[in-house]
Amino acid sequence: MSESYAGKINRKLLKKRRIIDAAAGRIPADLVLKNAAYVNVFSNQICRADIAVAEGLIVGMGKYSGKVEQDCSGKIVLPGFLDAHIHLESSLVSPAEFVRAVLPHGTTTVITDPHEIANVMGADGIEYMLQATEGLPVDVRFMLPSCVPATPLDESGAVLDYRALDSFYDHPRVQGLAEMMNFVGILAGDIEPVEKIVAAQAHHKKIDGHAPDLQGNDLNAYIAAGVYSDHECHDLQDAIAKLERGQFIMIREGTAARNLEALAPLLCDRYVERCMFCTDDKHPNDLLEKGHIDYILKKAIALGADPITAVKAACHNAARYFLLNNRGAIAPGYLGDFVVIDNFQDFHIQQVYKKGERMVENGVVRDFPLPKVEPYLIERAHDTFHLNILSAEDFTDHRPRGILGMVDGEITTQDAGYSDRIDVEYDVLKIAVVERHRATRHIGIGFLQGYGLKSGAVATSISHDSHNVIVVGTSEEACAAAVNRVTALGGGIVVWDQGEVQAEVPLGIAGIMSDEPLETVNRKLEEAKAAAHCLGVGRGIDPFMTLSFMALPVIPALRITTRGVFDVSSQSYV
Amino acid sequence: MSESYAGKINRKLLKKRRIIDAAAGRIPADLVLKNAAYVNVFSNQICRADIAVAEGLIVGMGKYSGKVEQDCSGKIVLPGFLDAHIHLESSLVSPAEFVRAVLPHGTTTVITDPHEIANVMGADGIEYMLQATEGLPVDVRFMLPSCVPATPLDESGAVLDYRALDSFYDHPRVQGLAEMMNFVGILAGDIEPVEKIVAAQAHHKKIDGHAPDLQGNDLNAYIAAGVYSDHECHDLQDAIAKLERGQFIMIREGTAARNLEALAPLLCDRYVERCMFCTDDKHPNDLLEKGHIDYILKKAIALGADPITAVKAACHNAARYFLLNNRGAIAPGYLGDFVVIDNFQDFHIQQVYKKGERMVENGVVRDFPLPKVEPYLIERAHDTFHLNILSAEDFTDHRPRGILGMVDGEITTQDAGYSDRIDVEYDVLKIAVVERHRATRHIGIGFLQGYGLKSGAVATSISHDSHNVIVVGTSEEACAAAVNRVTALGGGIVVWDQGEVQAEVPLGIAGIMSDEPLETVNRKLEEAKAAAHCLGVGRGIDPFMTLSFMALPVIPALRITTRGVFDVSSQSYV
Repeated sequence: MSESYAGKINRKLLKKRRIIDAAAGRIPADLVLKNAAYVNVFSNQICRADIAVAEGLIVGMGKYSGKVEQDCSGKIVLPGFLDAHIHLESSLVSPAEFVRAVLPHGTTTVITDPHEIANVMGADGIEYMLQATEGLPVDVRFMLPSCVPATPLDESGAVLDYRALDSFYDHPRVQGLAEMMNFVGILAGDIEPVEKIVAAQAHHKKIDGHAPDLQGNDLNAYIAAGVYSDHECHDLQDAIAKLERGQFIMIREGTAARNLEALAPLLCDRYVERCMFCTDDKHPNDLLEKGHIDYILKKAIALGADPITAVKAACHNAARYFLLNNRGAIAPGYLGDFVVIDNFQDFHIQQVYKKGERMVENGVVRDFPLPKVEPYLIERAHDTFHLNILSAEDFTDHRPRGILGMVDGEITTQDAGYSDRIDVEYDVLKIAVVERHRATRHIGIGFLQGYGLKSGAVATSISHDSHNVIVVGTSEEACAAAVNRVTALGGGIVVWDQGEVQAEVPLGIAGIMSDEPLETVNRKLEEAKAAAHCLGVGRGIDPFMTLSFMALPVIPALRITTRGVFDVSSQSYV
Repeated sequence: MSESYAGKINRKLLKKRRIIDAAAGRIPADLVLKNAAYVNVFSNQICRADIAVAEGLIVGMGKYSGKVEQDCSGKIVLPGFLDAHIHLESSLVSPAEFVRAVLPHGTTTVITDPHEIANVMGADGIEYMLQATEGLPVDVRFMLPSCVPATPLDESGAVLDYRALDSFYDHPRVQGLAEMMNFVGILAGDIEPVEKIVAAQAHHKKIDGHAPDLQGNDLNAYIAAGVYSDHECHDLQDAIAKLERGQFIMIREGTAARNLEALAPLLCDRYVERCMFCTDDKHPNDLLEKGHIDYILKKAIALGADPITAVKAACHNAARYFLLNNRGAIAPGYLGDFVVIDNFQDFHIQQVYKKGERMVENGVVRDFPLPKVEPYLIERAHDTFHLNILSAEDFTDHRPRGILGMVDGEITTQDAGYSDRIDVEYDVLKIAVVERHRATRHIGIGFLQGYGLKSGAVATSISHDSHNVIVVGTSEEACAAAVNRVTALGGGIVVWDQGEVQAEVPLGIAGIMSDEPLETVNRKLEEAKAAAHCLGVGRGIDPFMTLSFMALPVIPALRITTRGVFDVSSQSYV
């Protein structure tokens, strides 16, 4: 493993000489895409040539022969796509499974923020993800989670200060500090978030932003602090205000938030250089049904964007922003990451290459070796529940508690008054958040109206951002049973009724990701959704995603935390 | 001087909080440019706002008050300009004097390649320049000279291998490896130049190119080796071929080479993102009479380029190429480097600001503290002549020697046969190169035709790339006397006749730069030129620059080296 500097120079020298030999045509290339029409992101046109690859790198475009030759007549070759901001955990599967899902969609690099797992496992969570992504055929790069816990109200599994993050900046796949959601803290000059920015800059790293609707001099202050991107723009005016002040705009089109239609006008000569695509989160069925960056690219073209301009947003611009200067273009010295499509109208991906290796042919992903994760980290990732067996007593409380009133089609809630008991007829259900990281026995209790459950209970250990267990039930007994089952699984989603599990999705990795294949997880998840709807949960409601946000104490009006019902507007417990 | 990491974070934290406070308007800014129209390089338009600066950085554009307010109504504010590639030594003055000359022209950052001084002093030359540029009000950044000596035929003052360069990459103002002129060596996969590229990449540094007219698969090979810029393009086709393959194009408009007219069509939406301006070299009278990057910018606009597009090439694009991401734009967090002009038509520079300090007002440069250079380096820089006193004997040689035939208006020569004696009537003069670094007593002797000198001798210690002493004379005695005078000066240019100095330009710093002010050097240089012309040197010939290139053994047909006359075409001594 360890290598002297002189040894490294020598190894790279030999590799470089083979690259030069192949480029000059003195030795055959490893791979040649013959007669390719390819997108040239520098001259903004379609060029035609053979594309030669050696040692995983493009060595030239021109006339070449290779050990492997692939005729690309009539096809278009694009650089591999980049997702500029995603939380891999949102796919509910392991990184290797995520990679297996996105490779056929042409993704060859993703920038992940391991915010979810870090809220459970702290620095161990970041290290787990680094190891679990090592050497995968999609290059997974990291932005370090800037807000763990997400708010001071959260009881998360860890607290990461700048010193904890600092230890990761030397890792070759760490690009910077992820979305600084605490823009309020930055604007106030709070020491803790500003220290994180200062430390990231001291390491010459990028800092991503997250500041919906921030404007004017406050926006100036947030950017002047060092935050040079935003992925929260939901209208054009907001995006242009940020872009004009120097921020790069990540046009987000994911599962929960979709901003492409609003921001598509940015994909023009005037603005595109500062724009790129991201998904933020991608749930299993969305990944399987729609795709990934290819879906955004296709939609952008359908919305009228020039294909070459849109391709630049799908690869080159993100690469330049993150200083990944060896990708995002088809040119000598760049990675042999290619997406071969039929044409821009139909846009069928026929092959995907990573570092010159054909990884996908007609949708079929070639097998690849799995990363070796150190055993103690695997054990640690599968042992994140520190919670005793609970009983109905634990969920019983006769004092009146606030009612979170669900709002149709939104993740906001309204204040629906108080209750001191479950009333299924009036759709007043018990809701609780059970702290599960440190065995504190903290259980915050309240009521939920509008969910529709008529029997049993629904519990999930995906609950933003601390991933404690959130449960909604028609009885205290069902609540306790559902939570106990989640605990027994070491994390997961459980639909409980009639004294037994109706459906469940085990999420054994930190309580938020499964060890199973994406298709299996998706099937179980759909079955669980069906089971929840069967028990009465409203058809317009995603039974689990909706719950996941009920504990996020930054969305108005009322939220449920491990300490009880919290009024976001007045910043007080009710 | 030394500071712990914790101390650094704390210092930067306090600074950052003041920046945030000023941006948010809680404290007055240090400087506000009121009512400014400014070029926004992100939205590609002219914006209007107050521009606020604190702690040397722009904190916001909007409505601001400051301790100092400067009304900019009716003016246009541009980001400070960058020269993407220059050899500072070409100005013949010290770095501080160079800075005093270019600041009024709006230059706030230059990227220098200390190739000339490194050929004299080796690593000490690089260190001297680093120290002599520390803290100047133009930020001087370095690309490390890649070709010292320039060719194996040169007898230079030093040989720099990759290990010698490596020791500089940690310096915060070193951006990479300078123009890899040895493209032949790269294409051949020669170990020595390829090692330098590999080592630069191992340090995550940029590598500049120099490959006039290279094309096709050879160009692919050169770029694939890792060379991502070129400043040698002299026609559009050449430039586009390089740009299409991923190279950044430095449009050069300097004293010796001027490519702007040919390359101006690159200044359009399609190509401009990959283009920037550079000068390569700027001689004293050119600096004083024409200016610097402002001259290129004005000329580009006059040639029809859109002013905003041209401004981006003058600042933003170079900054992004060199990863100097805190400059080249007017936006929060960027350096307070501004050029205030009246308008794009007249283009008079009225003020120049560096890090929020007004350094130039109506052409007058504010005094600034000079860098402290360690005494041993000053001594070393002024003691680069290791040469005994010479006599006519040393230049006497009765064997026939080749005649370098000058070509009107070119720096190439033709083979003009042989001679065994000086013949002033037929303009056959003695030419010699005297090794001066290591007291080798190597003196290469030949003849020169076409120079026109009728009496005396002309000698200069500026002689590319090794900066030995080159002399042309009408007698061996005059040659010896002129060289002895150059030696006595510790370097310089000498016009000798009638047993005495007719004119001279002392160049005490490494024999290639003066300790005097630019105006003085320019005056002495013009006097020396006049004196040389007075002695018969043809009016169409620059008496010293022409000589400077006669020893560069890469330009056909014949050259003079310390080992005699060399035929570049046949690569052999004649």
